Amino acid sequence: MVTAEPVIELPKLSKAALLEARSLQRKKKRDELGKFLVEGRKACAEALKMPSVVEALYVRWDSAIANADLIDDAEQVGVPVYAVSEQNLATITDTVTPQGVVAVAHDLDVPLEQVLSEKASLVVICAQVRDPGNAGTVIRCADAFGADAVILSSDSVEVYNPKVVRASVGSVFHLPIVTGVDLADAIDACRRAGMRILATDGEAGTDLTDLDGKLKEPTAWVMGNESWGLPLEHLELADQTVAVPIYGKAESLNLATAAAVCLYASASAQRGQ
Amino acid sequence: MVTAEPVIELPKLSKAALLEARSLQRKKKRDELGKFLVEGRKACAEALKMPSVVEALYVRWDSAIANADLIDDAEQVGVPVYAVSEQNLATITDTVTPQGVVAVAHDLDVPLEQVLSEKASLVVICAQVRDPGNAGTVIRCADAFGADAVILSSDSVEVYNPKVVRASVGSVFHLPIVTGVDLADAIDACRRAGMRILATDGEAGTDLTDLDGKLKEPTAWVMGNESWGLPLEHLELADQTVAVPIYGKAESLNLATAAAVCLYASASAQRGQ
Repeated sequence: MVTAEPVIELPKLSKAALLEARSLQRKKKRDELGKFLVEGRKACAEALKMPSVVEALYVRWDSAIANADLIDDAEQVGVPVYAVSEQNLATITDTVTPQGVVAVAHDLDVPLEQVLSEKASLVVICAQVRDPGNAGTVIRCADAFGADAVILSSDSVEVYNPKVVRASVGSVFHLPIVTGVDLADAIDACRRAGMRILATDGEAGTDLTDLDGKLKEPTAWVMGNESWGLPLEHLELADQTVAVPIYGKAESLNLATAAAVCLYASASAQRGQ
Repeated sequence: MVTAEPVIELPKLSKAALLEARSLQRKKKRDELGKFLVEGRKACAEALKMPSVVEALYVRWDSAIANADLIDDAEQVGVPVYAVSEQNLATITDTVTPQGVVAVAHDLDVPLEQVLSEKASLVVICAQVRDPGNAGTVIRCADAFGADAVILSSDSVEVYNPKVVRASVGSVFHLPIVTGVDLADAIDACRRAGMRILATDGEAGTDLTDLDGKLKEPTAWVMGNESWGLPLEHLELADQTVAVPIYGKAESLNLATAAAVCLYASASAQRGQ
């Protein structure tokens, strides 16, 4: 813990830095600058565990004491911390209650070939996943179930969208994320790395409980769009299509809960449980 | 399919009905009138399968053709349909794109004792679940995995909150929902009906993959609040506390994905898969 005095003595955020942070709400600017916003205590704490990607931490001046632990973490790893007024913070974030803390981080996605080693046994490929909350939750589930990487196809939501980062609750900093690759290329790369490609499809003749021993093998799960799932031409790229079993009257599960179930089934089978 | 002419000839929503529908955005009014709003095509279609609970269907006048199937369904089961202007519909719903259709339905929650028969083998109890999106998604998952009922404890979000209804994607109409019961009473009732009470807790010494044969037995899952989980005094009411295994660096799963995994594990074990 730091004491109240040094917290209050944080340098004030410069106008140029404020304008830049504000501009990072727009995808075009994020792409141009190769940076993104990290909102909230939990996500900032996880970001600070990868200090090389964090450019700076901005703390609302009146919440410095509540965020003293984060300020301490930042100072220990050499990340500069600045004070920002409530009004200015509100122009940076789109969260109603941003907990008084935002970080600016450098893009952290990695090239496809870098993450797919022979050791990779569980990968999630999001194909045309458009809802930021869903994408962030899938990344959080992939992290929870020990996946080796998440791949977002080129027509999926941008991983640096503040809502994706927020819904991942820091998991974007926990496992390699690949973005902007063509779905067919992502599938090819996973197959070459020795993974079976399973695509989720509510209409599939095989359900998750039929897979038995196959789930123990290295697997890349392909999850489709929240509304239309995976079109036929994408289903055909997989080795097998698999349905999460529906025993009741619901027509389907939502994307993030379906992903959670598939990843749990794979991870527990692979770990011999 | 009906033709364009009769669709266009829908009677206009009265001012009194419009004001009543608008008032149903407030919990106080919902409680007083015992009615709630059902927004969107999918939820309205599911509501119309329980015509006794649907009072009326309101269709935006310029989307009557797009909703001709629903209008047809409503007319077949004797539910009156009214046309509403875009401006007036916007004052009824809080959805940005409500697909031009809203129903007014009567409360459908059932008493605790009515749903817990000896045949009940899978029940979800939400304890202090506050986020409407989470509650609706848990109801959808419970439906998908064939649960016999969902119980919302008295300090949980109201099931008739439009965001709960929307997130359930019609599942509120698919399985019995009990609301406003004390958590201890709900647990007692499930136990008396022969169910084992399993409470989810990230800190539990037993994880879901350790339960094996126990999962085949009738089970009531207790899911806690999205932020603080289940407090000690609630955990103590359960027969066993269970963690969803976390193999990666994520601290936890979100409530709806944890519920999905637990319900999938129970349902597939109970069905011998």
